[in-house]
Amino acid sequence: MKLTLDEIVTLTGGTLVRPGSATLITGLASLDEACAEDVSFLGNEKYYKEFLQTAAAVVLIPPDVPEQPAESALIEVANPSLAFGEMVKHFVKKRQAFTPGVHPAAHVADNVTFDPSQVCIKPGAVVESGAHIGAGTEIGPGAVVGTDVRIGEDCTLYANVTVREGCIIGNRVTLHSGCVIGSDGYGYELVDGRHQKIDQVGIVLLEDDVEIGANSTVDRARFGKTLIGEGTKVDNLVQIGHNAQVGKHCLAVAQCGISGSTHLGDYVTMAAKSGCVGHIKIGDHAVLTAKAAAMGDLEGGQVYMGMPARPMRETLKSKARIARLPKLMAEVKEMRRKLDQLNPAS
Amino acid sequence: MKLTLDEIVTLTGGTLVRPGSATLITGLASLDEACAEDVSFLGNEKYYKEFLQTAAAVVLIPPDVPEQPAESALIEVANPSLAFGEMVKHFVKKRQAFTPGVHPAAHVADNVTFDPSQVCIKPGAVVESGAHIGAGTEIGPGAVVGTDVRIGEDCTLYANVTVREGCIIGNRVTLHSGCVIGSDGYGYELVDGRHQKIDQVGIVLLEDDVEIGANSTVDRARFGKTLIGEGTKVDNLVQIGHNAQVGKHCLAVAQCGISGSTHLGDYVTMAAKSGCVGHIKIGDHAVLTAKAAAMGDLEGGQVYMGMPARPMRETLKSKARIARLPKLMAEVKEMRRKLDQLNPAS
Amino acid sequence: MKLTLDEIVTLTGGTLVRPGSATLITGLASLDEACAEDVSFLGNEKYYKEFLQTAAAVVLIPPDVPEQPAESALIEVANPSLAFGEMVKHFVKKRQAFTPGVHPAAHVADNVTFDPSQVCIKPGAVVESGAHIGAGTEIGPGAVVGTDVRIGEDCTLYANVTVREGCIIGNRVTLHSGCVIGSDGYGYELVDGRHQKIDQVGIVLLEDDVEIGANSTVDRARFGKTLIGEGTKVDNLVQIGHNAQVGKHCLAVAQCGISGSTHLGDYVTMAAKSGCVGHIKIGDHAVLTAKAAAMGDLEGGQVYMGMPARPMRETLKSKARIARLPKLMAEVKEMRRKLDQLNPAS
Repeated sequence: MKLTLDEIVTLTGGTLVRPGSATLITGLASLDEACAEDVSFLGNEKYYKEFLQTAAAVVLIPPDVPEQPAESALIEVANPSLAFGEMVKHFVKKRQAFTPGVHPAAHVADNVTFDPSQVCIKPGAVVESGAHIGAGTEIGPGAVVGTDVRIGEDCTLYANVTVREGCIIGNRVTLHSGCVIGSDGYGYELVDGRHQKIDQVGIVLLEDDVEIGANSTVDRARFGKTLIGEGTKVDNLVQIGHNAQVGKHCLAVAQCGISGSTHLGDYVTMAAKSGCVGHIKIGDHAVLTAKAAAMGDLEGGQVYMGMPARPMRETLKSKARIARLPKLMAEVKEMRRKLDQLNPAS
Repeated sequence: MKLTLDEIVTLTGGTLVRPGSATLITGLASLDEACAEDVSFLGNEKYYKEFLQTAAAVVLIPPDVPEQPAESALIEVANPSLAFGEMVKHFVKKRQAFTPGVHPAAHVADNVTFDPSQVCIKPGAVVESGAHIGAGTEIGPGAVVGTDVRIGEDCTLYANVTVREGCIIGNRVTLHSGCVIGSDGYGYELVDGRHQKIDQVGIVLLEDDVEIGANSTVDRARFGKTLIGEGTKVDNLVQIGHNAQVGKHCLAVAQCGISGSTHLGDYVTMAAKSGCVGHIKIGDHAVLTAKAAAMGDLEGGQVYMGMPARPMRETLKSKARIARLPKLMAEVKEMRRKLDQLNPAS
Repeated sequence: MKLTLDEIVTLTGGTLVRPGSATLITGLASLDEACAEDVSFLGNEKYYKEFLQTAAAVVLIPPDVPEQPAESALIEVANPSLAFGEMVKHFVKKRQAFTPGVHPAAHVADNVTFDPSQVCIKPGAVVESGAHIGAGTEIGPGAVVGTDVRIGEDCTLYANVTVREGCIIGNRVTLHSGCVIGSDGYGYELVDGRHQKIDQVGIVLLEDDVEIGANSTVDRARFGKTLIGEGTKVDNLVQIGHNAQVGKHCLAVAQCGISGSTHLGDYVTMAAKSGCVGHIKIGDHAVLTAKAAAMGDLEGGQVYMGMPARPMRETLKSKARIARLPKLMAEVKEMRRKLDQLNPAS
C-alpha cells in the first residue's frame, strides 16, 4: 500500500493544487484520523474544520476551497468522495491481488482436485484428501480444509480457518480467520447418568456469496445439512447450531446465536447478541434487535425486542408502563389518603 | 461416505422392493432434505407426505407401505429407524477410522512421549517438548499441544485446537476446532494507574469424557487448576474462567460463561448465553435457562431464570404482574373517577 | 516446572521444619486443591482447617504453627504469602524463558525485518512478506503474521493467533491463542436486494501493554484505524468492531462487545457480556455492569446497569418498584373493596 503523489494525481485524474512535502503515501484515513503518510478527502462541507486541522499528507478537495491546512498536499477533483472511493478500490485490488500457486510450506494431500495454476494455497495450510478447490480460490496460512470438502470458485479462506470433512462451500464465499465450519452439533442422550453423544454425520452447506466472520462457528447437521443461504453475511463470534436453515441475504451480527433446527427466512436481521431457541421459524424480513431472544415462531416483516421477543411496539409499551410505576404508586397513595378521609373507621 | 445400493441392502438386512435408478449413495438425510445421492427412512407415519415427495435415492421403509415416491429405490426393513441408526454408525465408524502415524508435515519435539504406532498426528500439528500423548489419540491439522501437556487415550483434538503448557487432558476427551485450553486467567492489579498482570501459573484439568466445543476458551488457574469434571459437555463459544470448578456431567450450552473461581455441582445445565459471576456455588442438577445470570449462590435441583437468576416460578410471576399492569392502571383510573364522584371538592 | 525440596528451601530462604516424603515438586496450589506433587502455603489463619487436611507435598508456614498435617513437608518462613509469591515468579520466569531463534518448521518470508538472534519464531508459525518483528518478541506455533504487519518489542503471540495485513502492534503486547486482529469490519450496502461489501481497508493499532484474550476479535477499520489504547486489557471472546476507539487502561471482560465507531474513554470497564451500540461515546471511568447495554452516550465516572444502560441507582429503583407490585396490587384490591362499600350502586 504505497503510492507517490504523482500516482495519486494520475489515479484520481485531478489537478495538483499544492505539492506539500510528503513523498510516500501508505494509508487512507478520515481527515481527523489521518497521519503524515495518509491520503484523505474533503467530501462534505461539515468536515471543513477537520480539513483545516488535518495532518494528512494529501487531501482530495473539491474546486474552490477558500482556506487550506498548513502542510498537506492538495489535489483538486470534481467529486472528492467518488475519487477517494476509486482509490480505496485501487488499494483493495492491489492488496487482494491473487497470485496463484501452492506454497512449498503448504500441505496438500495427493488426491485433491484443483488447478495449481488457478488456486493459491499459502504456507502452513492443510488440504486433506478428496477435497476440491475451485479456480480463483485462496486458502490462507494455517487454514485447514478437511477430507472431501468441496470449495467453489473465487473464495477466500483467511488464516487459521477450519472447514471440517464433507462440507460444501459455494462460489465467492469469504471465511474470516478462526471461523469453524462443520464442527459437531451439540447433541447428547442421557443414558444411565452419562451424556452419550448423538453422532453428527451431516454437513454444512454455505451457498454462493456467503461471508462468515472471525471465530464464528457453524455446526454440521445431525444428518442432512446445516444451510446458510445465498448472500447471507455472518459477523464475528456468531454461533449457528446443527440443522439450522438460514435463508438468503440475512444479516447475523456479532455474538448472536441461532439454535439447532431453527429456520430463518430470507432477509432476516439478527442484531448483536440476539438469539433464537431451537426448532422455530422466523419469517422473511423479520428483525431481532440487539439482545432480543426469539422463544417461538415469529412472523416476518416485523421488528422484535426483548426476551421473549415481541413486536417492538408492545415491548416499548410495557417498558413505558414500568416507567410510569412511580406515578401510579403516588396516585394510589393519594387515593388511599382520600379514602381514609371518607371512611376513617374502616 | 460412498455406498452402493447392494451394500445398503446387506448392511440393513432388508429386502430390495424397488431398485430405483441411483447407483452411488453418498449421504444421509431426512425425507424432506434428501437429495439424489442420499439414503433416508420412513420412521413414522406422520412423515408419509414427505415420503411420497422425497428426492432420496434410497428410502428404508417398513412393511406394507401402500404408495411410493416416483423415483427412490425402496428397501423394506422391520424397523426403519433402527436400520437407519445402524447405517449412521457405519458411516461414523468409517469416517472416524483411526489411522496411526505421525505425518512428515507435523512437528513433534524430540522428547515427547508417545507410541508412534498408536497415535495419529496430522500435517501442520505441533507438539512441544515434554508432552505425553496416549494411545488412540489423534492430533488434528494445525493443532498445537504445548510444553509438558499430558493427553490421555482415545482423545480427538480437531484442527487448530490449542492446548497450552502443562494442561492435563483425560481419556476419550474431544476438543473441537479452535478451542483454547489453558489461556491465561484474566487477573490484574491496578498499581499507579496501570493494570499489572497477576501471573497465572496453574493449569486446566479436563477429566475423562469431556467435550469442549469449537472456539470455546478455558482459562488456566492462577495457581492450582481450572477443573472440568468427568463427562461434562461444553458447546461452542463458551468461556470458562480461571479456577472455575465445573462438576461432572454438566451441560454448558453455546455462548454461556462461567466466571473465575465459581463452583458448579454435578449435572448442572447452563443454557445458551447464560452466565455466572465469579466466586459462587451452583448446586447439583440446577438449571440456568437461556440468558439467565446467576449473581449469587444457587441451590441445586431447581430451574432458574432472569437476571439475577431466581427460581423460574418467581420470575414468571413477576413477568405476569408486569403483564397485568395495563389492567391495574385502568382499575386505578376507574377508582379515581368514583372517588372524585364521592368527594368532588377534595 | 520441577523443583526438589532443597531447591524450595533455598528459593524461599526458609527453614525445613519437617522433610515429609515428597522428592519432586511440580506444581503450585491452594491448600484445598493441592495434590501430592504441589507446594502450597498457609497465608492466613482462616485457612487453618484446610492446612491440617491438605495433601500438599510441601507447605510454607509461618513461625509457631501448633499442629501439622499428616504428610506434608513443612518449611517455615517469615511471610508465607510473600515467599509463595516469589516462587510463583520463579516458575513464571522459568516457564516464560525466552529462547531466541527461528524454528526450521516456521515459515518466514524473505523480506521480513527482524533480528534472528533476538526473536523467537515457533514451528508452524507463518510470517508474511514486509512484516517487522521487534526484539524480544515470540511468535507462537501456528500463529500467522500477515503482510506488512509491524510488531514491537517484547510481545507474545500465543499459538494460532492471527494478525492480518498491515496491522500495527506496540511493545509488550500479549495476544492470546486464537484471537484475530484485523479481520474485516462488518459493513454492507443493500443494492438490488444483495448485500454489497463495503471495502475495509484500514488497520488495527494496538498500543503498548495491550492484552487481547483467547478467541477475541478486533476488526480492521473501514479506513483509518481501529484503536486499542495503551494498557487496555481485553478478556476472551470479546468482539471489537471496526473503527472503535478504545481508550487507555480499559478493561473489557469476557464476551462483551463494542460496536463499530464507538469511542471509549480511559479506564472504562465493560463487565462480562455487556455491550455498546455503534457510534456512541462512553466517558472516562464509566463502568458497564454484566450484560448492560449502552444504547447512547454515557457520562464518565458512573456505574451503569440494564438495557438500555442507566445509572445503577435508577435501575435498582425500577427493579425495587417491580418487586413492590404484589403489595401495590393488594392495596388497590383493598381500596376497591372499601370504595364499593362506600358506593355500592355505582
